[in-house]
Amino acid sequence: MTELSTILAQITPLDTRAMAAAETRQGQLTKPPQALGRLESISIRLAGITGNPLPSMARKTIAVMAADHGVVAEGVSAYPAEVTPQMVYNFIAGGAAINVLGRHVGARVLVTDVGVAADMSGVAGVRQKKVRAGTANMAQGAAMTRDEALRAFAVGIELVEEEIANGLDLIATGEMGIGNTTPSSALVAAFTGLPVALVTGRGTGISDQALERKVQVIERALAVNQPDMHDPIDVMAKVGGVEIAAMAGVMLCAAAHRIPVVMDGFISGAAALTAARLCPTVIDYILPSHISAEVGHQVVFAELGLTPLFNLEMRLGEGTGAALAMSIIDAAAKILSEMATFEGAGVTGEMVDE
Amino acid sequence: MTELSTILAQITPLDTRAMAAAETRQGQLTKPPQALGRLESISIRLAGITGNPLPSMARKTIAVMAADHGVVAEGVSAYPAEVTPQMVYNFIAGGAAINVLGRHVGARVLVTDVGVAADMSGVAGVRQKKVRAGTANMAQGAAMTRDEALRAFAVGIELVEEEIANGLDLIATGEMGIGNTTPSSALVAAFTGLPVALVTGRGTGISDQALERKVQVIERALAVNQPDMHDPIDVMAKVGGVEIAAMAGVMLCAAAHRIPVVMDGFISGAAALTAARLCPTVIDYILPSHISAEVGHQVVFAELGLTPLFNLEMRLGEGTGAALAMSIIDAAAKILSEMATFEGAGVTGEMVDE
Repeated sequence: MTELSTILAQITPLDTRAMAAAETRQGQLTKPPQALGRLESISIRLAGITGNPLPSMARKTIAVMAADHGVVAEGVSAYPAEVTPQMVYNFIAGGAAINVLGRHVGARVLVTDVGVAADMSGVAGVRQKKVRAGTANMAQGAAMTRDEALRAFAVGIELVEEEIANGLDLIATGEMGIGNTTPSSALVAAFTGLPVALVTGRGTGISDQALERKVQVIERALAVNQPDMHDPIDVMAKVGGVEIAAMAGVMLCAAAHRIPVVMDGFISGAAALTAARLCPTVIDYILPSHISAEVGHQVVFAELGLTPLFNLEMRLGEGTGAALAMSIIDAAAKILSEMATFEGAGVTGEMVDE
Repeated sequence: MTELSTILAQITPLDTRAMAAAETRQGQLTKPPQALGRLESISIRLAGITGNPLPSMARKTIAVMAADHGVVAEGVSAYPAEVTPQMVYNFIAGGAAINVLGRHVGARVLVTDVGVAADMSGVAGVRQKKVRAGTANMAQGAAMTRDEALRAFAVGIELVEEEIANGLDLIATGEMGIGNTTPSSALVAAFTGLPVALVTGRGTGISDQALERKVQVIERALAVNQPDMHDPIDVMAKVGGVEIAAMAGVMLCAAAHRIPVVMDGFISGAAALTAARLCPTVIDYILPSHISAEVGHQVVFAELGLTPLFNLEMRLGEGTGAALAMSIIDAAAKILSEMATFEGAGVTGEMVDE
């Protein structure tokens, strides 16, 4: 298992030579300049990430991390914690939204227990990497120890390295964890210093009263734990989650190996923000997908300087928004490698009016 | 060949029973209520269009209509008219953006000559339905006769009927026609009464000077022809295009046969507006895709009361935005039919906080 510090040292800037070659080719393809808009800029980004002027995004994995959260004892979620393992069984049976969308876009769905409170050992189809059986209640103390947080990051790193061994061009982060918009809002508040109420939403659909309680719980967690915003590991340990740390580990390891990684919704966004605080260069390797209906997601986009690809008013998590984005990203790569050039197709490329 | 008047009489409202059944099922699937946002509303719309509570969108066609425009003599386009037939050859060779994206989303690309100025007879892979070899210059008189316009609508109708015979669940409209943002802006101006300058953009990328000229040419075409905004056939004949009429025919025929039809960019939007003026109910059968960078497209969305699915800053036409939307629409249908229910998967569906 590669340690976090090693991975951080391996993340380097985009390959500008490959990007220039991709940009030149976009100008030769049979279409007016820039007529494919963001498909073109994505393709150039993919070239810079991979170092390949004609990258392929054929082999895709959606890494779904499952974990529980002690803070649900405070009544911050619309659903009971037992839904986390129930949904893991649904994932391995192929009946969840992420399974449908994963099949639709040709991506493997990799389900990993990184911190489910229930015992899932021996369950076929679930990658076993439990760091701890649910976090502690962060409203009363640290969600986990610093060592556990580091192991959670390392689990994400390990998963990417295993997927690379299986063949991997594009990876996305997804999650399942009842209550996990609460630590996500806590992380965003801790990293930005913004008031908790501005970065906290209804998750899967809590009432006004429960939303007010959720904000108070997060404020209490920040007051009790006093996370150091300049020490991302400390923040993650105190007010984060095992799956969120693992997702950040996935993003950092993907960047270290020059593999593009797709950010899903708000929880994935909190992981991306954590990763960016550990190593700002990772942002160049993160491709946005949708913007979630969860309010804190906007803050994440602004902090990372990214623009969502689309807004379909989704707020599910699991990796569902990222799955749809993977198909668009794959399309962008195919435009670059499969389209004919003006010269090759005998099409007049010169404009009569410029 | 079915006549336009017959098709108009066959368009009926959405099937509200199928929609109610689809909506009920969405509430039983293993996800929080409405968590998949527009994927859910699209799936319900698909049920209403098809009359099937579990619709399949497996068999897809992108109908690309090619035609030329006499108005290019006025210097309104960045590319010469010879590019229209050159791009048709590129389509049948599989090298254009729409070929790449059609393959990517599993859609047939159906290329039809409805009005190319060059002789394309006998060219394998091109559906031969030429109404006339390019329109006349609308700045000097009618683009085509009323009878030609009616035949152009009928060509679109005929194409859909042929595709239905081949098996069709979802169709999209695309086009190739150097100069065709000019008649599209003229149509939108004529149908809305808005000033030409507000609905006219740079097409494939003309200069400031050429844009000013383009606006003047459209103003002249409207002044010379005096189209009757309450007679959509008259408007299409005088300031439209053969491919635009054929695309409107596709939309109306799809609606008559309860098949969803995806609107692409601005030219497709001008066709949709024409179809809606002939029969407002058709709007229920039209699914939006992207919003184009071409300014008049916003007006089309507002007039039709539709909201784009995404904005990727595309402005190519061909059907490229619609192709990407087809994949999202297919995904929406699969969510409805392939996801497990709470009961079936043994997942707790009751909220603890409501």
